[in-house]
Amino acid sequence: MAKELKDLTKRSVNYSQWYNELVVKADLAEQSAVRGCMVIKPYGYAIWEKMQRQLDDMFKETGHVNAYFPLLIPKSFLSREADHVEGFAKECAVVTHYRLKNAEDGSGVVVDPEAKLEEELIIRPTSETIIWNTYKNWIQSYRDLPILCNQWANVFRWEMRTRLFLRTAEFLWQEGHTAHETREEAEEETVKMLNVYSEFAEKYMAVPVVKGVKTASERFAGALDTYTIEAMMQDGKALQSGTSHFLGQNFAKAFDVKFVNRENQLEYVWATSWGVSTRLMGALIMTHSDDNGLVLPPALAPIQVVIVPIFKGEEQLAKIDERVNPIINKLKGMGVSVKYDNADNKRPGFKFADYELKGVPVRLVLGARDLENGTIEVMRRDTLEKTTHSIEGIEEYVKDLLDEMQQNIFKKAFDFRTAHTFEVDTYEEFKEKLDKGGFVLAHWDGTPETEAQIKEETKATIRCIPLDGDKTPGKCMVTGKPSKCRVVFARSY
Amino acid sequence: MAKELKDLTKRSVNYSQWYNELVVKADLAEQSAVRGCMVIKPYGYAIWEKMQRQLDDMFKETGHVNAYFPLLIPKSFLSREADHVEGFAKECAVVTHYRLKNAEDGSGVVVDPEAKLEEELIIRPTSETIIWNTYKNWIQSYRDLPILCNQWANVFRWEMRTRLFLRTAEFLWQEGHTAHETREEAEEETVKMLNVYSEFAEKYMAVPVVKGVKTASERFAGALDTYTIEAMMQDGKALQSGTSHFLGQNFAKAFDVKFVNRENQLEYVWATSWGVSTRLMGALIMTHSDDNGLVLPPALAPIQVVIVPIFKGEEQLAKIDERVNPIINKLKGMGVSVKYDNADNKRPGFKFADYELKGVPVRLVLGARDLENGTIEVMRRDTLEKTTHSIEGIEEYVKDLLDEMQQNIFKKAFDFRTAHTFEVDTYEEFKEKLDKGGFVLAHWDGTPETEAQIKEETKATIRCIPLDGDKTPGKCMVTGKPSKCRVVFARSY
Repeated sequence: MAKELKDLTKRSVNYSQWYNELVVKADLAEQSAVRGCMVIKPYGYAIWEKMQRQLDDMFKETGHVNAYFPLLIPKSFLSREADHVEGFAKECAVVTHYRLKNAEDGSGVVVDPEAKLEEELIIRPTSETIIWNTYKNWIQSYRDLPILCNQWANVFRWEMRTRLFLRTAEFLWQEGHTAHETREEAEEETVKMLNVYSEFAEKYMAVPVVKGVKTASERFAGALDTYTIEAMMQDGKALQSGTSHFLGQNFAKAFDVKFVNRENQLEYVWATSWGVSTRLMGALIMTHSDDNGLVLPPALAPIQVVIVPIFKGEEQLAKIDERVNPIINKLKGMGVSVKYDNADNKRPGFKFADYELKGVPVRLVLGARDLENGTIEVMRRDTLEKTTHSIEGIEEYVKDLLDEMQQNIFKKAFDFRTAHTFEVDTYEEFKEKLDKGGFVLAHWDGTPETEAQIKEETKATIRCIPLDGDKTPGKCMVTGKPSKCRVVFARSY
Repeated sequence: MAKELKDLTKRSVNYSQWYNELVVKADLAEQSAVRGCMVIKPYGYAIWEKMQRQLDDMFKETGHVNAYFPLLIPKSFLSREADHVEGFAKECAVVTHYRLKNAEDGSGVVVDPEAKLEEELIIRPTSETIIWNTYKNWIQSYRDLPILCNQWANVFRWEMRTRLFLRTAEFLWQEGHTAHETREEAEEETVKMLNVYSEFAEKYMAVPVVKGVKTASERFAGALDTYTIEAMMQDGKALQSGTSHFLGQNFAKAFDVKFVNRENQLEYVWATSWGVSTRLMGALIMTHSDDNGLVLPPALAPIQVVIVPIFKGEEQLAKIDERVNPIINKLKGMGVSVKYDNADNKRPGFKFADYELKGVPVRLVLGARDLENGTIEVMRRDTLEKTTHSIEGIEEYVKDLLDEMQQNIFKKAFDFRTAHTFEVDTYEEFKEKLDKGGFVLAHWDGTPETEAQIKEETKATIRCIPLDGDKTPGKCMVTGKPSKCRVVFARSY
């Protein structure tokens, strides 16, 4: 696989192109032969696996279990919830037949018209309908509640404009679907999972997020409330990174799921759903990476440390190998993932550029002179700083450095967001700041009309009504009507 | 969820019904609203997750990486490999449209005829075609080889008769797809993965398997050789539990994947593919379970030990809790998964039956009198034996017991298979033994005609030509023609 390491477009030249090139050059993903569907390559998938493992642990710690529901959903299920069908019908892949047959002209296979389904099936765009149809049989009494299920799955939404990880027709995700006795319990669950997402984003992805509630026009189709975490990319645009929905009794009513409550009365079940997807890969890449390639937070890097020997001939290499082996073992024992790249068919300079491109957090370089001096060169990917250290104790140094880098990468993103977050009071100032890129905190009168007008005129949407922060009332920057608090506006992915 | 613990059909009365009931009663899986598609319930999925984790570790130890390829495949890809299309075209779910719209009569949604795909897409029944179309771009030179990718995914085959786990339209599986420089290397890989499967089956599932090669008529569609592991169920039928295919250059030719070899010549790439699926759940259930419910090997049991207190009133319970907590902590520290069921809304007898049904390997029971005596009751699920032990040191005892049970469960299955494996020399004897149930080792002349005749007359198929064991030549039991060695016949799932 030939690499073109040097000609990565600079962010300042074309941010969007930089992203598209980086995803491909760093071997994360590529377009497939099927429109809008991506191939997630091994290196990209290894990062996703680390995300999955961590999230899955967090779901289980909060009492959830995994299950699996069908890929295909009867078309009629979609119609049961009015908002839901409105939101998803226009992007459904539809299965109409169940067999192919040989073409009569021998040109290949054609759809067998005799194998037509009585009712068409859609590939799940999300699974509320099939899951609530299943829950109907699981729930009779309050004793059967809560149900706290999660599913890791692929879903499909026929998107017209796609971009690797950010918007693809097929994507991988997890979707939690919970069922509760009371409104309060369901609302608590919704917020609890939002907090799990925000903790994951900040602690593991090193991506600072704003937690908030979506306005009615940005809600999930079928939800009473949608909570979101919003991250800021380096071009100042917002990326919705995870959502948690309070579904009220909408799906219970649509699928007639009632239970006998503690007062012995029949009542509809309360629901939540929540999900994050391979879109997080996009957030991770765009938040931290630079003109040399990926920058990965150590917590999610498949390779945390790469060791590259500088040698001439097998004898020199053998000596370096001998010195490096105990370092590798010790690092592995400390839970650090290490790769020793002593291949002799690539030059060190090529290796350096390749591991930089792939965002390996720490690079250790050891040559013949280092061996004599008892030293080793350390390069940290986040700042590209190179320093020389004693080989003695290098393992502890590296372990501490990885922790420091995790903090530093987060701080850098946090400081960037702070520097690109603006409070404005007039619509004029709003437009001005918006064009610079970033989050703009402004007062809004709470009406969908004003929201739509702002979107139409500036392409900015309300990313969320933030949960934390200043709650001082004010006046809408457009209409002058009263506003309960500032909301977060931004252009977005 | 109401449980009907008592009325599980006995194996001796109706083995097939026993299986169907057990899968549902033990909360492993159930039918969904979509024909042939199952819901894997949390308890069943927890077992599958343990299998996945273990297999994934074994794949990685043998140098493989995970990736993800598209769910949908262009219809025309299937036609590229002649045998492949023959094998899969008749069971493909076909996507023909990408949008629904509201019905004009307001009755719901209908397929939008204007959103018809130019080329229909099929839901992957297996991914050789889409993956080899992708590999084409990854491979130029021998330096790009080998490629050792695995994918965890859902696949879809429109089956007419389905049974939970054993044969479902949608199932979960992993599919390895590797690309190699030489025939030898690809053949080695095929056998290596067969050995990984057999090690997994025997060591973790405690299911003894026969390793062998399929006859031409039972080969994977597009393979030059299919290797298999075959397990014997308690009704004497065979269950194909995993397959590893040597694909030769068939898919490389179909998708024009050539590489520059070490002699600087263009050559087609050599391929393998290999997979196991949620069908393994069926093998696990049917090999070990009994008339009281599931029997799970400790290595794959989501809950290895359940502790049930016998108490009257909160005061007694508090004392038992106090004594049990350090036991739980110590067991967890030893890597044993423990559940303490001190719920007071279910009687001990109900709990006992429920955990038996669910196959929890070890049950510990502790009552007020035990506390006084410093004793605890231990029940092992494989033999249903109850014994009393000192509380002191119970953790080590349980840990050893789990290891012993893992061995014992395997031995029981192994002995069963030995007792139901027969060598026969005449066709008459063959039919007689076959009706008793089991594997019949007999000579066969190597022709598809004789194989077909035997299948037609007895419903037995050649499960495999075994790799290990007696290789003495002989004469075909049907035609009297020469035979290289005995092959394994059985009726099968």
